[in-house]
Amino acid sequence: MTVEIISVGTEILLGNIVNTNATYLSMQCAALGLSCYYQVVVGDNEPRMAEAMKIALDRSDVVICSGGLGPTEDDMTKEVACRVMGEKLVEDPETRRLIKTYMGAFAKSHRGYQITENNWKQAMVPEHGIVLKNDNGTAPGIIIDKNQKIMVLLPGPPIEMKPLFDQQVFPYLRKKQTEVIYSTTLKIVGSGESYVEMSIRDLIDRQTNPTIATYAKTGEVHLRLTAKAESEEKAKKLITPMKHDLEKRFGTLIYTEDEEETLEMAVVRLLHDQNLTLTTVESCTGGAVAARIVNVSGASEVFKQGFVTYSNQAKQSLVNVKAETLDQFGAVSEQTAREMSEGVIHNAVSDISLSVTGIAGPTGGTKDKPVGLVYVGCSCRGKTAVRELHLSGNRNKIREQTVVTALTFLRECILGSM
Amino acid sequence: MTVEIISVGTEILLGNIVNTNATYLSMQCAALGLSCYYQVVVGDNEPRMAEAMKIALDRSDVVICSGGLGPTEDDMTKEVACRVMGEKLVEDPETRRLIKTYMGAFAKSHRGYQITENNWKQAMVPEHGIVLKNDNGTAPGIIIDKNQKIMVLLPGPPIEMKPLFDQQVFPYLRKKQTEVIYSTTLKIVGSGESYVEMSIRDLIDRQTNPTIATYAKTGEVHLRLTAKAESEEKAKKLITPMKHDLEKRFGTLIYTEDEEETLEMAVVRLLHDQNLTLTTVESCTGGAVAARIVNVSGASEVFKQGFVTYSNQAKQSLVNVKAETLDQFGAVSEQTAREMSEGVIHNAVSDISLSVTGIAGPTGGTKDKPVGLVYVGCSCRGKTAVRELHLSGNRNKIREQTVVTALTFLRECILGSM
Repeated sequence: MTVEIISVGTEILLGNIVNTNATYLSMQCAALGLSCYYQVVVGDNEPRMAEAMKIALDRSDVVICSGGLGPTEDDMTKEVACRVMGEKLVEDPETRRLIKTYMGAFAKSHRGYQITENNWKQAMVPEHGIVLKNDNGTAPGIIIDKNQKIMVLLPGPPIEMKPLFDQQVFPYLRKKQTEVIYSTTLKIVGSGESYVEMSIRDLIDRQTNPTIATYAKTGEVHLRLTAKAESEEKAKKLITPMKHDLEKRFGTLIYTEDEEETLEMAVVRLLHDQNLTLTTVESCTGGAVAARIVNVSGASEVFKQGFVTYSNQAKQSLVNVKAETLDQFGAVSEQTAREMSEGVIHNAVSDISLSVTGIAGPTGGTKDKPVGLVYVGCSCRGKTAVRELHLSGNRNKIREQTVVTALTFLRECILGSM
Repeated sequence: MTVEIISVGTEILLGNIVNTNATYLSMQCAALGLSCYYQVVVGDNEPRMAEAMKIALDRSDVVICSGGLGPTEDDMTKEVACRVMGEKLVEDPETRRLIKTYMGAFAKSHRGYQITENNWKQAMVPEHGIVLKNDNGTAPGIIIDKNQKIMVLLPGPPIEMKPLFDQQVFPYLRKKQTEVIYSTTLKIVGSGESYVEMSIRDLIDRQTNPTIATYAKTGEVHLRLTAKAESEEKAKKLITPMKHDLEKRFGTLIYTEDEEETLEMAVVRLLHDQNLTLTTVESCTGGAVAARIVNVSGASEVFKQGFVTYSNQAKQSLVNVKAETLDQFGAVSEQTAREMSEGVIHNAVSDISLSVTGIAGPTGGTKDKPVGLVYVGCSCRGKTAVRELHLSGNRNKIREQTVVTALTFLRECILGSM
């Protein structure tokens, strides 16, 4: 089956936002074994949207649209799709009920807010459409499966689009595929993309079925193995030898083989398994390491508190960094990172501590201590280790890399390789 | 004039890379006053590429392609474009000379590298094409201006594409344009998208020049006013009355009129202007509010420290929440939010404090205190205000909305509307 991705939104055509939805949907469709030959972006304009949909339905089996399902007048993806597919719009009582609940809760926390007439537009669905319940917004997703063509409509915000696609559209489309595609992802930290690629060059060169692909994320490299076969079991069998080979090559650099598990989830799992509690002490990341840990539901068992010691004063008063240390070595130094980390352990508030101090830029760098210089410290089982990092990029990029590297370092320290 | 952007590359269709070229080109075309109605992505496949180009030339005045100009066999954008535009390929001696120089230098720094026969493919150009010298690679850019249509071919790597576009294509297209486009964005917090739209329904209904569009972000609504005129000055003048009208309607709900300013930047600016320092005390957001503040370069002047009090124990020991309060009302309560906020003010560590406690889910909710119940507290100038929120969505969505709402609440408190 072939698939075409249509992203709806004038803001994409104006270059105001990057079309990451198309990237995500294409990647997921590739995982499903669907061939994507076209991605199209069209604005919130009825005739042009209709034309794009007609062309897509003419040349592709599945058309996935995202965007234009909001309550306002220029949101018209659903209306146009229904016209093109010959569907009538009817009100879905369940969706209306959900909108009422959702908007009612919203109104309570936003003074002066009222549900307006245009909100109910979102309760209208195609007569023969499949309504996909959206847990993160008021626009339901929709599948219209008719005359050998499948049209999928998803809301534009990624936080709504992704769970809808993963939980409801992906399984739907998988059932339509005759060959089963099975993928496994090995997630690697602590190694660059080109190094990983060099280490598996031989596997890349002789790949057929399974195939192997590398995806670089901030501070991570994901290896995706994909096999096609007539059953999931057979596809899994095809993958197993290559997977074992990679496990040998990368060892504990692989933090998970579970597609759903993030680095922070792996770290929380590790803390949990080893019965350790963690405290964070952050300067340049400003709480982002703690926030990442708290992404994980159930983090409260291993994470009790964190400090954001952004000023020198806070480093002294909250975690007992010595004034002399700050004077002599500066806030961004191996010594300060060490004392930040040891300070909380001495207060016996947790088993393990993780500290971060660095220069995220764009200002604050010097010749000796340039922007991108970061120290991460970890105290665990009576020992403290500190690592010096030299990162590049803008402020956000440096801070993002710092968070990932800090979590990776924490993981290494727990695993005993500090 | 209308423009269409075609990005060529199978890696985009597989979701392996994000199509940032289309974003960049669209933004530049908007600045030129070109109307971009479509972006298309097509793979390295001759018939499909030809079809995409034909459709584009049929409906748009200018077609800008990026990608597929490399030396390998699957790079065929130039060949296909020439076929579609009825152009013959001829060798350009100057380009051949440049390739020789460039590849010679490359070979010197890469042992074992040799110029191969397919490199010379890049020296072939359309007979009536304009050749654009590429300082950062071997593929020249090309403009074919023929039969009232302009086809622009650019290499795919952004580091080559952007300077070629900016220095040679932009001025070429500007000469063809008679109008300038100018946009202003008003960013609104504390109000839902449909409520904002209802409040400006009359403006939307009678829009011509300038136009007005709403964009929803998490917890924010952006209003973009766009005018066309023969000069930037005249376009600005067209926008002014509508801008003043919107300022009257939304007042302090508008946190900025600067396209580049984020909510956290506006909050840091406000703290700075009022000479206030801030401390954060976070439970369910786990440091994300502090991290958002620290996004802003220069935040250190107003933000000195934050606490992540994820456990009850931490709430007591770090910010002096009373054990009785936690016992009687629970960690997620108006009273606890109040004490978290007041605790740090009593310790006189900053002028203003912002506290957050809530249930982000998916577990931890009860009938009385469901997932999505959040309290934000703010102590400022001897007063403490607490707001109760009822949010919905998954864990991330709830936490993201909480961060935005907390910053909005902080802003309101500083502005004296608490």
